[in-house]
Amino acid sequence: MQSICSHTSTVHFGETGYAEINGHLAKSNYSSVFVLVDSNTHEHCLAPFLSQLATDSPIEVLEVEPGEVNKTLETCNQLWLALSELGADRKSLIINLGGGVVTDMGGFVASAFKRGIDFINVPTTLLSMVDASVGGKTGVDLGPLKNQIGTISQPVMVLVDPIYLQTLDQRQKTSGFAEMLKHGLIKDANYWASLKPGIPEKLTESIHHSVAIKNEVVTQDPTEQGLRKILNFGHTLGHAVESYFLESEAHETLLHGEAIAVGMVMEAYLSYKLCGLPWSDCEEIKTTFKAHFGSIAFEAEDIEKILGYLKFDKKNSHGKVKFALLKAIGDTQWDIEVPQDLLLESITYYEKV
Amino acid sequence: MQSICSHTSTVHFGETGYAEINGHLAKSNYSSVFVLVDSNTHEHCLAPFLSQLATDSPIEVLEVEPGEVNKTLETCNQLWLALSELGADRKSLIINLGGGVVTDMGGFVASAFKRGIDFINVPTTLLSMVDASVGGKTGVDLGPLKNQIGTISQPVMVLVDPIYLQTLDQRQKTSGFAEMLKHGLIKDANYWASLKPGIPEKLTESIHHSVAIKNEVVTQDPTEQGLRKILNFGHTLGHAVESYFLESEAHETLLHGEAIAVGMVMEAYLSYKLCGLPWSDCEEIKTTFKAHFGSIAFEAEDIEKILGYLKFDKKNSHGKVKFALLKAIGDTQWDIEVPQDLLLESITYYEKV
Repeated sequence: MQSICSHTSTVHFGETGYAEINGHLAKSNYSSVFVLVDSNTHEHCLAPFLSQLATDSPIEVLEVEPGEVNKTLETCNQLWLALSELGADRKSLIINLGGGVVTDMGGFVASAFKRGIDFINVPTTLLSMVDASVGGKTGVDLGPLKNQIGTISQPVMVLVDPIYLQTLDQRQKTSGFAEMLKHGLIKDANYWASLKPGIPEKLTESIHHSVAIKNEVVTQDPTEQGLRKILNFGHTLGHAVESYFLESEAHETLLHGEAIAVGMVMEAYLSYKLCGLPWSDCEEIKTTFKAHFGSIAFEAEDIEKILGYLKFDKKNSHGKVKFALLKAIGDTQWDIEVPQDLLLESITYYEKV
Repeated sequence: MQSICSHTSTVHFGETGYAEINGHLAKSNYSSVFVLVDSNTHEHCLAPFLSQLATDSPIEVLEVEPGEVNKTLETCNQLWLALSELGADRKSLIINLGGGVVTDMGGFVASAFKRGIDFINVPTTLLSMVDASVGGKTGVDLGPLKNQIGTISQPVMVLVDPIYLQTLDQRQKTSGFAEMLKHGLIKDANYWASLKPGIPEKLTESIHHSVAIKNEVVTQDPTEQGLRKILNFGHTLGHAVESYFLESEAHETLLHGEAIAVGMVMEAYLSYKLCGLPWSDCEEIKTTFKAHFGSIAFEAEDIEKILGYLKFDKKNSHGKVKFALLKAIGDTQWDIEVPQDLLLESITYYEKV
């Protein structure tokens, strides 16, 4: 499958990718290679990955606990201490083998260790393959606030190998599927139509198509001055829901895709009210997400707290929350201000069967 | 005094600087302005600085405890939480008003907050004026390891106003003087000769000259692939001494300039042994530094521990410690490997009266 060239890094698919990594290692003369995993990818992905790796550099494995709750500065601090203890230097390489938590956090750890060392991302979840493989966003959460601390730093390359999806449970897969649906909604109506029935059988081709869509956007606007903001569709309310569920003791934590599925339904309603998205499309979006993701019930007290998180949204400035909303399926506007009463209406719309 | 143009930022001197900052604020429409100080600059520098600042944006003051011991991830974490609490967004600006601890740490905090916001540096110590005002190095310490965590991020501008030196004590001034002497040693023999008698009377002109020397180096090699390494003269052993004294309970913490003054004498000896620095110049360097900085006494047990810190030096790779050493006063080589026995000899040389 054709590799996708992003800024300074390239996304390689399947077998080609291992050859590319090994070729890069052969010519780069790294002093040492660190493979960052969580306990899940340690168990399921590390052995097959290492069996494909050919290098004379010493390899060390660094393991973190899985899950968003561990994507913190404290974990970074432990990783930086471990790297120092193990003699990592400026010519060391970090390979991040895992989902978005591992690639986001490992990228940040690499970008700030001794003012920046090389890293390679090997996403192992559907979500991280379609979402985190291009764009160079790295980061960790600050308490419940998602990705508040981070940098824009490009990996030297990315390897997407769908073989790692075999051990992924259905809930994790569906979470990644939410981002694929988003790529259709914001940029490609035909892709959306093809995905509506459910996770496609020819998954590798769809992953490639999702990466290509995202890459087209981020190469035009790497630092999110304009166009790149369309990738935030569903994420403004979605992140607020995700943060609230992460911090609330009364609710089980949502996966990222589950939270933005909620956010996309709510923001489809805002799109209908403010950007001319046809009502029928708005309803189609709601029906599709509810079919695949079910429905989350909110209490009255939840809603106020969720809206409270909006003020920490990274897209804000001057106290105003800005949304990326749909003019039509496949066509997105950004920097749309939304009045408070519409936010409440959008939640009511989500809840209505 | 003529401004000095660096990469994306410019260093302005004296009165001109305030006009430039105010002009920048007027056209940039920041949502809020945060001024980072430590308790010293809060007391001595904040009021005169704010009296020159003209902006309609709300201003918040953030204060940290002074000193290298507080240049930590923990302090960054507190600052990021405070910024979030106070509603900082991507259009906020941080002005770092202080010595190297404040400008290094504040630059790192800005470069990783919501993946990077603007910052301006206003160095208030002689050391930070001549050393931290160009080059874009930001960072914090990891335990006793200096600047292990950080980024290369350019401030939008830098203001050097010698008025802030009035409240600086003599020990702090002498610490900054060490970096000025280094600029002469690595790049400008005449400047070295002019500085040998002591801190010059026309200090502003000398600061300007030091910034110009450093800027010439860092603009040619912003990411320290080669030439920029000459700025590390005295810093390989100097940082090891500094780290050891920072962690050791038996020793008082050294100021940065005091530690690199020691390092420069030791590395002058290595320069004599390995790079052809004439013996008379080596002796002149030792005499000059001892005249201004006195002499530090080391115990036998100290020496082993100091050499132990060398393995964490950021210039290392593949387990080898690389030095920048003098061929002559004003002419520097880099990437020089030093045998272990010479390191011990260099310490003995320093100690000998």
